[in-house]
Amino acid sequence: MKSPIDFYFDFSSPYGYLAAQKIEALAAEYGRGVTWRPLLLGAAFKATGGVPLPQIPLKGDYAKRDFLRSARFHDVPFRIPDPFPVSTVSACRAFYATAAEKQVPLAKALFRAYFVDNVNIGEAANVLRIASSLDCRPDIENQAVKDRTRAEVDAALAKGVFGSPYIVIDGEPFWGVDRFDQIERWLREPF
Amino acid sequence: MKSPIDFYFDFSSPYGYLAAQKIEALAAEYGRGVTWRPLLLGAAFKATGGVPLPQIPLKGDYAKRDFLRSARFHDVPFRIPDPFPVSTVSACRAFYATAAEKQVPLAKALFRAYFVDNVNIGEAANVLRIASSLDCRPDIENQAVKDRTRAEVDAALAKGVFGSPYIVIDGEPFWGVDRFDQIERWLREPF
Repeated sequence: MKSPIDFYFDFSSPYGYLAAQKIEALAAEYGRGVTWRPLLLGAAFKATGGVPLPQIPLKGDYAKRDFLRSARFHDVPFRIPDPFPVSTVSACRAFYATAAEKQVPLAKALFRAYFVDNVNIGEAANVLRIASSLDCRPDIENQAVKDRTRAEVDAALAKGVFGSPYIVIDGEPFWGVDRFDQIERWLREPF
Repeated sequence: MKSPIDFYFDFSSPYGYLAAQKIEALAAEYGRGVTWRPLLLGAAFKATGGVPLPQIPLKGDYAKRDFLRSARFHDVPFRIPDPFPVSTVSACRAFYATAAEKQVPLAKALFRAYFVDNVNIGEAANVLRIASSLDCRPDIENQAVKDRTRAEVDAALAKGVFGSPYIVIDGEPFWGVDRFDQIERWLREPF
């Protein structure tokens, strides 16, 4: 039995969203499951000195163009939400507060709400409404949920995760949806 | 007659080196030439607040692993040179001081010297020796050459170039050797 793939992402990351549309089918092709691991990119940025792409001179303008073009390239519905980016603390807590079997449907619904329907998932009320549509009632103000979320994010940072998407296969890390070609080859056979 | 592709790169950039091994064949397949445009990434970093990858916590360690894995993926001989990165002012000046028909062979020789043979192309004497092996005698201390190099770098920055490799096709920019899949589709038909 092969280990599942670890899929780290931030709910506010366009490339994380694109990766989320493809990773399960790719993993399944090679007999793997996927462990979804949302994190808070802001916490990772503190470690690397990173800043959100849209704020970087030159690179920010390029990034917006690349988000849109990459979505067309991968044939995935996408818009740049407004506002963008947003805090994903509520979304992340909602994920970790939800029963395992509903976590992935919730993650997909949150991504779709933000990057297709332009719903501001930075607002807790919107996160709870999306969860409710899946019959989930995550208690995102619960201290245990907050602690669990913090522990998950800290564990990701401790493993060296610094971006979104960040995929780990049997200890081998891949950063970016643009590493899916290497991921596919690695799943076939490490090189 | 289709316009040539603009290929911006820094001689100290591993991903620029990988791109240099593939871009001419790809362009030729779609009836295009390639205009090689070396630049000084340090100057671009001043505009974007960027720092060389190896210096960034977490990301630096990942980058080294990704350089090596990407070279294997693309089946290109590669090692991480020591020292790395280096200033590429001399290499850049040598390129712009050289007659057009010898510029690309010189660029390839500089890349190979650095990323295959571990020759420190940050040192002017090594750059001149490599040029000499191609019967080139670039006058890299000449003020006109310095000015030309500066003007080329400034022109690249003015066009929004912030990384290496950075490829422009009929005004459409692509950053990274990992955009070659999108570049290929764009050359077939813009999407």
